[in-house]
Amino acid sequence: MRRISVFGATGSIGQNTLDLISRDAEGYRVVALTGGNNISRLAEDARRLKAEVAVTANEDCLPALRDALAGSGVEAAAGQAALLEAAHRPADWVMSAIVGAAGLQPGLAALRQPGMTLALANKESLVTAGALLMETAREHKARVLPVDSEHSAVFQALVGEDMSAVERIILTASGGAFRDWPLEALAEATVEEACNHPNWDMGQRITIDSASMFNKALEVIETREYFGVDPGAIEVVVHPESLIHALVGFRDGALMAHVGPPDMRHAIGYALHWPERRELPVSRLDLVQIGQLNFRNACEVRWPALRLAREVMEAGGLAGAVFNAAKDAALDGFIARQLKFTQMAEVVEDVLTELSGEPGLIDAAITLDNLAHVDHLAKDAARRAIDTRKS
Amino acid sequence: MRRISVFGATGSIGQNTLDLISRDAEGYRVVALTGGNNISRLAEDARRLKAEVAVTANEDCLPALRDALAGSGVEAAAGQAALLEAAHRPADWVMSAIVGAAGLQPGLAALRQPGMTLALANKESLVTAGALLMETAREHKARVLPVDSEHSAVFQALVGEDMSAVERIILTASGGAFRDWPLEALAEATVEEACNHPNWDMGQRITIDSASMFNKALEVIETREYFGVDPGAIEVVVHPESLIHALVGFRDGALMAHVGPPDMRHAIGYALHWPERRELPVSRLDLVQIGQLNFRNACEVRWPALRLAREVMEAGGLAGAVFNAAKDAALDGFIARQLKFTQMAEVVEDVLTELSGEPGLIDAAITLDNLAHVDHLAKDAARRAIDTRKS
Repeated sequence: MRRISVFGATGSIGQNTLDLISRDAEGYRVVALTGGNNISRLAEDARRLKAEVAVTANEDCLPALRDALAGSGVEAAAGQAALLEAAHRPADWVMSAIVGAAGLQPGLAALRQPGMTLALANKESLVTAGALLMETAREHKARVLPVDSEHSAVFQALVGEDMSAVERIILTASGGAFRDWPLEALAEATVEEACNHPNWDMGQRITIDSASMFNKALEVIETREYFGVDPGAIEVVVHPESLIHALVGFRDGALMAHVGPPDMRHAIGYALHWPERRELPVSRLDLVQIGQLNFRNACEVRWPALRLAREVMEAGGLAGAVFNAAKDAALDGFIARQLKFTQMAEVVEDVLTELSGEPGLIDAAITLDNLAHVDHLAKDAARRAIDTRKS
Repeated sequence: MRRISVFGATGSIGQNTLDLISRDAEGYRVVALTGGNNISRLAEDARRLKAEVAVTANEDCLPALRDALAGSGVEAAAGQAALLEAAHRPADWVMSAIVGAAGLQPGLAALRQPGMTLALANKESLVTAGALLMETAREHKARVLPVDSEHSAVFQALVGEDMSAVERIILTASGGAFRDWPLEALAEATVEEACNHPNWDMGQRITIDSASMFNKALEVIETREYFGVDPGAIEVVVHPESLIHALVGFRDGALMAHVGPPDMRHAIGYALHWPERRELPVSRLDLVQIGQLNFRNACEVRWPALRLAREVMEAGGLAGAVFNAAKDAALDGFIARQLKFTQMAEVVEDVLTELSGEPGLIDAAITLDNLAHVDHLAKDAARRAIDTRKS
C-alpha cells in the first residue's frame, strides 16, 4: 500500500489525481488531502478515501471543515502551519498541486522525506526556486516527477536516454487565442478575447497566460531548471493541435516526440505509476482521424514573453522569482483593465530591468526569505510600472 | 578497437556504413567486407579501410578482385563458402546488408559468435526466418539491432520501456507513387509510373514494392518477428512526408514517435553506436520549415498487401517465406510486363492459398532446408499463377 498525499486536492489536477487513486483504492492509503475554500469537496473526498487528515489553507474555514468531517475519523486542520505539518506526515508519493507561491514550502517539506516521490504540478516552485527544490531532492534522495503535460512529455522521451546526448528540447505551444490575429490588433485585445482558448477549457488566468505565452515562458524556465539544459537548447514551436506536447532532439539527429491524449490524467497517471506505465482511462489517439499536425514559428515579436524567458534564464538566481511576481502583477493589471494586453510584457520587462540593476539582488542565495523579499520588490515595481501606463 | 565486418559493403547501406566508420577510422578494425560484382568499389574500400579480407559473392570475379588487391595485404576470396568463412571471423559488430535470401546464412553464422551485435538490414532474414534468427541470437547471447528506419524508430521509442506496456506499434508509409491515384486506374499502372516515388530515390524493385506496399507488408511482418507483438497490435498509417517513421503506443495512452532525418545514416549510426547516441553527420529537422505532418488511412483495398501480411502473421511458420518468394516472383512478372500492377497481390494471394492447403508445409520447422523447399514451391506456384494471367 503506497501512502499518498494530495496538496491542492480540490483543484482540477487534484481532482484528477483522486479519480485515478479511487480506481484502485486498495492500492493506496491516503495520508493528507489539502484544499482551499471548497470545504464540501475536500470533506467528501477525505471521507470517501479515508484520509488521515484534511487541511484547508483558510483558517476561517476550519469550523466548517470540522462540521463536515464530524464522525468520519478524519482529522481536520487549517492554516499554513497545518499544511506544513501535513507535508511532514510520512508518505511515499505526494502530489503538489497547490497554485502559486504557497506551493513551495509544502513541496520542500515533502522532499525532505527520504525516498519521497513528489509529483510537481506547482509551476512556481520550479520557476522561482528550481535550484533549491532540485538540490533538496538530491540531498534527501527524493525525486521530483513533472506533471505538466509538456514536462512529462520531455521526461518520457528521455526514459532510458543519456542527458549528455540531448541537443535540444522543443516545447510546443497552442499559440493561444491570438495566434492568428494581426500583430497590430493585439494592443486592443480584451480580457474576454484573451480567454477564448482554441483547445483547452482552463481557468481565466492560465488562459490569458496562454494567449500571451507567459505560461509557455514559465514552462521554458521550468524545463531549464528541471532538466538542467542550456537556455539555448530550449525551443518553442507553435503547434495548434496541441497533441505533440514536446520533442527531445538528440545529437544523432533523432527527435523523440510525445504525442499525448488531451487529458491531464495521462501525465498525472504517468507520475503516479512511474517507472511503470499502467493502463489509464484516457482515450487513444487516432492519427488518421487527427489527419494533420501543424507547426509554426513562435514569433518573439508576437510573444515577447519567450524572449524575456531567455533573459531570465541567462540571469539565473532570483530572476525567475522576479519574472513570476511581475507577470502575476501585470496579469492582475490586465484583468483589472489597467493595462493593455501588450503592456503586460512591457511591465515585466521594466521590472526585470529595474531589479537587475540593484546590486546583489538577483544574485542573492535562493532562500525563502530572499524569495519573499524579491517577490515583494517585484510586485511593487510592477505596480509602479502599471501606474505610469494606466489609462 | 571494435572489430567490424560489413556484408553487402558495396550497396547503399553498406556504403553509408563505411562512410560512418571512415569518420572514426581509429575506433574500428575492419575484418571482412563483402560485395557482389562491383569489384573496384569493394577493393578500393578494403584497401582504404585495411580490411583483413574482401569477399565477392560471384566466383567469376575472384581473379579481378585478386588483381585489384595485389600488394595491399588484403586477402581476396569468393563464393558462398568464402562468405560464410568471413562471417565466422571474430568480430564485435556486423552489418548484414546483403539483399535477398543470400543474407540469411551469413547473418546466422555471425550470430553464433557470442556477444555479437548484428545490425540487420536484410529484410528477408526476419520475414522468412525470424524465429530462427532471434532464437539463434538468444542462444548465443548475441543481439540483433534493426537498421530499417521504421524498425530503428520503434526500437528507439522502446528504449528504457517495458514491452509489456506496449499496446500497439504504428508504422508509417509514404504511400508510394499511387497514393493519390483513383483506385480504378491502378490496374493500368505501368512500371515507369510505379517507379516514380514521391520521397525517396531508391532502386526499381523497392520503389515498386513501396507503391504496392509489399515493402510495408514485409516491414509489418518484420515488426512482429523482431518485437514479438501480436499481429493485431501492428498498424500502418499513410504519412506522405515520411518524417515520423514509427510510433509506439503504450497502455497509458502515450504515443512515442520517432521523427527522423531522411538519411539512412541515422539508423545505421544508431545501430553502430548503440546503446550510446553519438553525433552523426545528418541534418537536423526544423519543424517550422516542415510545417505540416499528414496522416491518412492505409486502405487495404488500395493496398491488399497489408491484408495479406496480417494473414501471413496469423498463419506463422513458413508463411513468411512463401509470401516473400511469391512477392518476388510477382514483382518479376510485373517488371516483365506479364502482370498488371493489381495482379501482383492476386498472385501472392493465390500462392498463399495454394500452399496453405498442403498439409504440414507451412507448419514445418524453420530450417534452411525447409526454407529452400518452400521458396522453390512458392516461386513455382507463382509462375503458374502468372501464366494464367499473362496477357
